[in-house]
Amino acid sequence: MPVIHIEMWPGRTYAQKQELAKAITDAFVKIANTTPEATIVIFSDVPKENWAQAGVLSSET
Amino acid sequence: MPVIHIEMWPGRTYAQKQELAKAITDAFVKIANTTPEATIVIFSDVPKENWAQAGVLSSET
Amino acid sequence: MPVIHIEMWPGRTYAQKQELAKAITDAFVKIANTTPEATIVIFSDVPKENWAQAGVLSSET
Amino acid sequence: MPVIHIEMWPGRTYAQKQELAKAITDAFVKIANTTPEATIVIFSDVPKENWAQAGVLSSET
Amino acid sequence: MPVIHIEMWPGRTYAQKQELAKAITDAFVKIANTTPEATIVIFSDVPKENWAQAGVLSSET
Amino acid sequence: MPVIHIEMWPGRTYAQKQELAKAITDAFVKIANTTPEATIVIFSDVPKENWAQAGVLSSET
Repeated sequence: MPVIHIEMWPGRTYAQKQELAKAITDAFVKIANTTPEATIVIFSDVPKENWAQAGVLSSET
Repeated sequence: MPVIHIEMWPGRTYAQKQELAKAITDAFVKIANTTPEATIVIFSDVPKENWAQAGVLSSET
Repeated sequence: MPVIHIEMWPGRTYAQKQELAKAITDAFVKIANTTPEATIVIFSDVPKENWAQAGVLSSET
Repeated sequence: MPVIHIEMWPGRTYAQKQELAKAITDAFVKIANTTPEATIVIFSDVPKENWAQAGVLSSET
Repeated sequence: MPVIHIEMWPGRTYAQKQELAKAITDAFVKIANTTPEATIVIFSDVPKENWAQAGVLSSET
Repeated sequence: MPVIHIEMWPGRTYAQKQELAKAITDAFVKIANTTPEATIVIFSDVPKENWAQAGVLSSET
């Protein structure tokens, strides 16, 4: 059941995404009584020039 | 009024997106009393390596 | 695979949501080569006071 | 940096949300080289009547 | 064209939402060459117990 | 605290994104009692062929 969306800057490797998907799914199964099959994780790589904090694009910092 | 977001793997053709946008808009107009002009559909192509189910990236399956 | 998010004003009945979920899923199965089981539809009821167009809350119009 | 959105059915307790937020944040810090402070987790409780799979509202199953 | 989603804690008044919708729409019209009519703003009030930073629910801080 | 997502067609320049991020953050600080540091803005460039209104892809209009 849970659908998990992750927005982060590019730079995470394929292996890191594998590990994150595994760790997050395990957390939901263990803590929230879901099944692995029902747990969907979707990554979104957001370029730093599309991300701002304090009014400044992260590509500037 | 309705805003519809669609996340799916790449591979749908331009013609398929045209058909989907038309079919979904028609469904909202017919079932939910909206106007076509007020119905917005946004597609997001999510690479398989950014999608996981059961803790495994879809690019691995 | 597809995850579909629908944002709309409250007021759609339970029966209308049933019909919408069915019609949208059918469209994806027919047009986009997905299976019904892999098609997830999530509705979000957005109060008119949380929706604005042209800079005016929809509750004002 | 990462912003994580979680959509799930209601029913998770306050304590479960605490554990999930902690576990997910820990996973990002350990695997993805982020800081805890930069990791935001947002839960969204989606009623079963607003969630459909295979064209059927989850409140029907 | 732009669709703007805003997630924030509850507590913003109706008047504040009116002002925010107006100010954001004006910014898009002035800076991004859009029309007011094409600019949609959607607010989402996220309870503090559904928001976490640094692994801690905001309702705890 | 606020997280703001902006979906729009490509074509906005880097300078326009800088201005938008600044203007939106300023609006939240002034109107909604947030701090600049707590205000995150995320842009998403949606190709016209992934955007439909009235059932027609925007790339067709």
